[in-house]
Amino acid sequence: MTTDALREQVCALHAELLRWNLVTWTSGNISARVPDADLMVIKPSGVSYEDLTPEDMVVCDLDGTVVEGRHKPSSDTAAHAYVYRARPDVGGVVHTHSPYATAWAARGEAIPCAITAMADEFGGDIPVGPFALIGGDDIGKGLIATLDGHRSPAVLMRGHGVFTIGDSARAAVKAAVMCEDVARTVHLARENGPVERLPQEHIDALYDRYQNVYGQ
Amino acid sequence: MTTDALREQVCALHAELLRWNLVTWTSGNISARVPDADLMVIKPSGVSYEDLTPEDMVVCDLDGTVVEGRHKPSSDTAAHAYVYRARPDVGGVVHTHSPYATAWAARGEAIPCAITAMADEFGGDIPVGPFALIGGDDIGKGLIATLDGHRSPAVLMRGHGVFTIGDSARAAVKAAVMCEDVARTVHLARENGPVERLPQEHIDALYDRYQNVYGQ
Amino acid sequence: MTTDALREQVCALHAELLRWNLVTWTSGNISARVPDADLMVIKPSGVSYEDLTPEDMVVCDLDGTVVEGRHKPSSDTAAHAYVYRARPDVGGVVHTHSPYATAWAARGEAIPCAITAMADEFGGDIPVGPFALIGGDDIGKGLIATLDGHRSPAVLMRGHGVFTIGDSARAAVKAAVMCEDVARTVHLARENGPVERLPQEHIDALYDRYQNVYGQ
Amino acid sequence: MTTDALREQVCALHAELLRWNLVTWTSGNISARVPDADLMVIKPSGVSYEDLTPEDMVVCDLDGTVVEGRHKPSSDTAAHAYVYRARPDVGGVVHTHSPYATAWAARGEAIPCAITAMADEFGGDIPVGPFALIGGDDIGKGLIATLDGHRSPAVLMRGHGVFTIGDSARAAVKAAVMCEDVARTVHLARENGPVERLPQEHIDALYDRYQNVYGQ
Repeated sequence: MTTDALREQVCALHAELLRWNLVTWTSGNISARVPDADLMVIKPSGVSYEDLTPEDMVVCDLDGTVVEGRHKPSSDTAAHAYVYRARPDVGGVVHTHSPYATAWAARGEAIPCAITAMADEFGGDIPVGPFALIGGDDIGKGLIATLDGHRSPAVLMRGHGVFTIGDSARAAVKAAVMCEDVARTVHLARENGPVERLPQEHIDALYDRYQNVYGQ
Repeated sequence: MTTDALREQVCALHAELLRWNLVTWTSGNISARVPDADLMVIKPSGVSYEDLTPEDMVVCDLDGTVVEGRHKPSSDTAAHAYVYRARPDVGGVVHTHSPYATAWAARGEAIPCAITAMADEFGGDIPVGPFALIGGDDIGKGLIATLDGHRSPAVLMRGHGVFTIGDSARAAVKAAVMCEDVARTVHLARENGPVERLPQEHIDALYDRYQNVYGQ
Repeated sequence: MTTDALREQVCALHAELLRWNLVTWTSGNISARVPDADLMVIKPSGVSYEDLTPEDMVVCDLDGTVVEGRHKPSSDTAAHAYVYRARPDVGGVVHTHSPYATAWAARGEAIPCAITAMADEFGGDIPVGPFALIGGDDIGKGLIATLDGHRSPAVLMRGHGVFTIGDSARAAVKAAVMCEDVARTVHLARENGPVERLPQEHIDALYDRYQNVYGQ
Repeated sequence: MTTDALREQVCALHAELLRWNLVTWTSGNISARVPDADLMVIKPSGVSYEDLTPEDMVVCDLDGTVVEGRHKPSSDTAAHAYVYRARPDVGGVVHTHSPYATAWAARGEAIPCAITAMADEFGGDIPVGPFALIGGDDIGKGLIATLDGHRSPAVLMRGHGVFTIGDSARAAVKAAVMCEDVARTVHLARENGPVERLPQEHIDALYDRYQNVYGQ
């Protein structure tokens, strides 16, 4: 895929964040790795979703330095860049403050794998990463360390919000959308009584099936 | 109704799942029995709702084997098929992970018939079926066994989500929409204090009236 | 206003119920008194909101008998008719099962006047009327008896939903919309701690000002 | 900016209040200071958002007296005017009854700065101002006194709702949108367990960075 096609795709995917109520004002961002290049395409900082055009997207190298673009890149660029450097298998990264998932993050509590949809998509609990300040590599490091111990493509960064990864930007967006969905359902379940984690053997069977059988 | 007309109807009904916020990404599915044939029309697996066209719908026999269609059918096909085999009166089946209903399912708790709208539509509590793994006949069996003991056209499958039935796909969609609606209202009621079930005689009177007098 | 103009107005107002999320599927209804006639215009039973046209509206006398129209009137017609007979000052009636207000109704708990917006619109608590079965005059009687003791144009019918009145259908719709709004805010407030009613003198001052100064 | 351009801008910004679900019916209002003049542009009282046109906007002096316009100004005009008199740095004021923020206001409880998005935008807790009756200078006084002790451009007026300020009307709207967003997230977090305030040093670092580095 060319960089221009990727700009268009990443720009268009931001509409999904709005549509599924994951973002408010300018609060979330998506990036994609440019195939066969040490580059990524990422949202500009603080630009509203309606005004975003493919030309607004910023191309950075994997240290987060702007290579092409008329805007400053997302203030979360360093975290995205760190993930691409550490994980060559990752093609897309998404960051949001989606409300239900961020509520779990604010308490520093992992979302227990209590429903089959979570076993399907996340293969277990959605874990909590450390609190880390924005700007340097701290978020990226905490994120990668937390991802390494779990199947989940989503991590709740403590006191902050959600990061998700995928082999493409679209896959990372799907993970962000489903993370908020299950965060909400398990939140609602817990409001009116205790919720039990599914047995590990069922989680394993569901995850295996969904990853290998579901879809076209 | 011809199979083509049914493809169109089932395709269009998926927009109702989105509109009433019952589904996220590609997570729900609708099927309809083809009249006077051992066939059903069902959503393809993992196709997004905006991309769905009538031609994408899959025609299966009542063992779930594809008869016509360019896509794999929904991963929940076995459950739909089981229902049509077991219940000749059923013309449509809907499955969702709608958030409030699934929250009750996650706790394994039936929704008590605490409001007149529930008595009208469901004739009593919305019951909980067993936990069952996807793929074989377990979901279908648990679903039918649970439906048999209740008036409700909706069942909460434990740790999973909602299945509804109807004499048509549209009726099953209505049941899914109303199930989420009452799941939410009774959830909200319970958050701020105890809720009492309506007296059985009132439930019976309301159900009888609604089934026989309401509508055109 | 002619009956035809009223059909158009009542039909159009149903879109407000959808827009403010007060209704699901076909669950709410609006009526208006025909000026200078013992007649009312009301929604037909069980017709979906998108399909509603001014011609679908039903004209009934104040006993609820159809005078004009090709459809059966709303199953709540008897309650609307009772209100118009009992209260010559009422020009419009609205009934919904809006979720937050119905949650208070399910518990049989009045909404305490804890915020200025409630004092403005409702002049105090939103009271709870008795549980009553649909069809005859029981809902209407309970509604009128409850309205008589309060300033509020909204009543929560126990275990059922909301009825509101106004000098016009539009005013009754506004009351239904604001009832759900304050039901939600006070519900949310109560979820995280106790909430106090405003002092009566402040409620009186706010109500007086809003009824006499606000708007054009 | 001319008064006409400002009328257009203030009118258009009201659509953002609707879009982000901060207002119901006619319940919120926005004003902007006219640059280099002791004037402000404000919403008319009780006009619905769809019907608003730039010509409907009212121009008042900073005592709240109408200078130009065919409508009565917002019933909150005195509070807006007070803020412009007391704070020459303020270019825009917004008032809403957004549900989650108003829920905190109903309890008279400040929103603790528990997530990074709050530290970014508000630099600490969102404070609670006194209960005050509408009409005179009481709301304005309480608002200014509360703003003076905090970095937050948002104040929760006890038992009432939210006021936000900004150097422009757009900035005040952003503060109102983000106030509701964080009010919701921290509300949700608190529903399922205790939430801790971020350490002051992290709040300071995040606020400093966001105010000076974020955006274009």
